[in-house]
Amino acid sequence: MLTFMSKLPAEIPDFSKGDGLLPAIAQDAETGEVLMLGYMNAASYAETLARGEAVYFSRSRNRLWHKGEESGHIQKVRAVLVDCDGDTILLQVEQLGGAACHQGYRSCFFRQVTPDGLNTIAEPVFDPAKTYKAP
Amino acid sequence: MLTFMSKLPAEIPDFSKGDGLLPAIAQDAETGEVLMLGYMNAASYAETLARGEAVYFSRSRNRLWHKGEESGHIQKVRAVLVDCDGDTILLQVEQLGGAACHQGYRSCFFRQVTPDGLNTIAEPVFDPAKTYKAP
Repeated sequence: MLTFMSKLPAEIPDFSKGDGLLPAIAQDAETGEVLMLGYMNAASYAETLARGEAVYFSRSRNRLWHKGEESGHIQKVRAVLVDCDGDTILLQVEQLGGAACHQGYRSCFFRQVTPDGLNTIAEPVFDPAKTYKAP
Repeated sequence: MLTFMSKLPAEIPDFSKGDGLLPAIAQDAETGEVLMLGYMNAASYAETLARGEAVYFSRSRNRLWHKGEESGHIQKVRAVLVDCDGDTILLQVEQLGGAACHQGYRSCFFRQVTPDGLNTIAEPVFDPAKTYKAP
């Protein structure tokens, strides 16, 4: 088995790094804004390429997560890039609904670290209470 | 010990997620270009804040890695952001030397995934053979 495996071409991205899960950054394809970081396994990566929409692996739900499946905030994939080590994925996306963050902000990175603590640097663009059904 | 720990305020970023290592994205503060993704533990994060320069934890070398310590390609930190879950760090940086990637490219994300395979979409800005000493 190892012999057979070793003859396979090197795979990029290499999901064997990170125990099958690699970080995937989503960036606004137009503005360059970093929207979020999710994780992908090989199945979610394949599904992302097949759909042309971001599909992550949710570590908390332990299943594939088609981003926007509940909120409608789909990420249309404009380009997929991989880093030099083949262990990080960068998606350049069109963010539907104007927001990536489940807390209602355009980007999940809406807080800046300052000497006085965390400073919220963005305004929410939707109300999570109206977007997500009660559990 | 556990009782004491549980009384501590929730820490952001929360290094207990990811077994003490969190992904840290470095983004060009001016252009928004995503330059690389590294990992940080609490010590490298503290060192980053203290120096105002990116200090990662190198998983391959198993030690703190002051980015640019060998190449001179220091990352001057302009802003530190954290995501909604407190488990990803985003550094907005000024990349000295014009390049983040040890392979000589401005960004580590210099390859795009296409139906025909990987397509190199950038030109190298330095020659790694001249920048790094032979091991």
